[in-house]
Amino acid sequence: MRIAVLGTGAVGRTLAPAFVRLGHEVRVGTRDPAATREREDWTLDVPLVPYGEVADAAELVVNATNGQVSLDALSEAGADALAGVVLLDVANPLDFSAGFPPTLTVKDTDSLAEQIQRAYPGARVVKALNTVNAGVMVDPKRVGDGGTTMFLAGDDAEARALVAELLRALGWRDIIEFEQLSAARGMEMWLPLWVRLMGQLGTADFNLRIVRREIETSP
Amino acid sequence: MRIAVLGTGAVGRTLAPAFVRLGHEVRVGTRDPAATREREDWTLDVPLVPYGEVADAAELVVNATNGQVSLDALSEAGADALAGVVLLDVANPLDFSAGFPPTLTVKDTDSLAEQIQRAYPGARVVKALNTVNAGVMVDPKRVGDGGTTMFLAGDDAEARALVAELLRALGWRDIIEFEQLSAARGMEMWLPLWVRLMGQLGTADFNLRIVRREIETSP
Repeated sequence: MRIAVLGTGAVGRTLAPAFVRLGHEVRVGTRDPAATREREDWTLDVPLVPYGEVADAAELVVNATNGQVSLDALSEAGADALAGVVLLDVANPLDFSAGFPPTLTVKDTDSLAEQIQRAYPGARVVKALNTVNAGVMVDPKRVGDGGTTMFLAGDDAEARALVAELLRALGWRDIIEFEQLSAARGMEMWLPLWVRLMGQLGTADFNLRIVRREIETSP
Repeated sequence: MRIAVLGTGAVGRTLAPAFVRLGHEVRVGTRDPAATREREDWTLDVPLVPYGEVADAAELVVNATNGQVSLDALSEAGADALAGVVLLDVANPLDFSAGFPPTLTVKDTDSLAEQIQRAYPGARVVKALNTVNAGVMVDPKRVGDGGTTMFLAGDDAEARALVAELLRALGWRDIIEFEQLSAARGMEMWLPLWVRLMGQLGTADFNLRIVRREIETSP
């Protein structure tokens, strides 16, 4: 699968090589490739191209940019390139401008994922992976026995299925699928508690497991 | 311990008898006791008194009212009665007026728990139990093996300790304690995801377990 990863922060730099290891053809998009290549933290051997080219001919576009600049980055990628593609949004609309704890730039009655979907009605937006840190995204076994829960939300069944397959390839086994992208509101509003937990636990290597009566009482 | 439970909805009607079973002296507050006694769903053998009397001489006041009327109910209980007491807020600021899914009346930069704390600076507010449904609050074993996670937040260490003891008596073993009441923001913003999960799982008998690397890799 041809995957375009938008963003060269910790999330993009973690997702891109993980997708390569799974056998996918990966390109990473950035605003200014020359500037990114000069960064000390850019050590990946993955094609690096401008946002304006990265989504061309991609089957899956992954928004791994900072949530506050996601809409700008996607607009550089362009509506034409995004038409018809599955757009996996892993970003969180966190605003750290007033310090800690961060606040959310969108919430409750809307979400970043829905903002993206409205801006690019031709894309098939799926929200997933935003509820854990980058290391856990690509290696669920970092936490416990790997049996924690991953959420996935999207309006398009085929797009959800494609992302669910990718999640399973990354090692996710307990995937809860919401058939409405608006469930991304709750997935993004999980972040304030996640941030407090990171402070309290002193690690980002944690996740939630949704425990249901049914599962646990079965023999 | 003398406990005043404010509210005769499902939460108040579940918490009050659970506290009685633990040996506490419990009174339930309601706006109009005569009207409550006429309700078919009021079957408890627990003293029922007006909000204006319920908190008098209580050591612990539990806000189990609907989040949208909590401040009104507490104002009837009165600032004098609330001064110095530990005020356990289990309510959620959910607004169902526009149908499903509900929205939050306060969020992100503030919380219901903090609104209550500001309105009654003499009270020692602790947020807990709001992240699960009433049945699970008093019986963590309804979910899996009972080892799911309960959060607790409050600025006052003594008040947190008193509530933590009560939670342990109810059967909660994995309690994560936040030393700032503002962590209630994240605990309340968990509800939108909780509501979606209830719809998806078809049950309210679920909860999250926070899985940390440390716990699972220890021998």
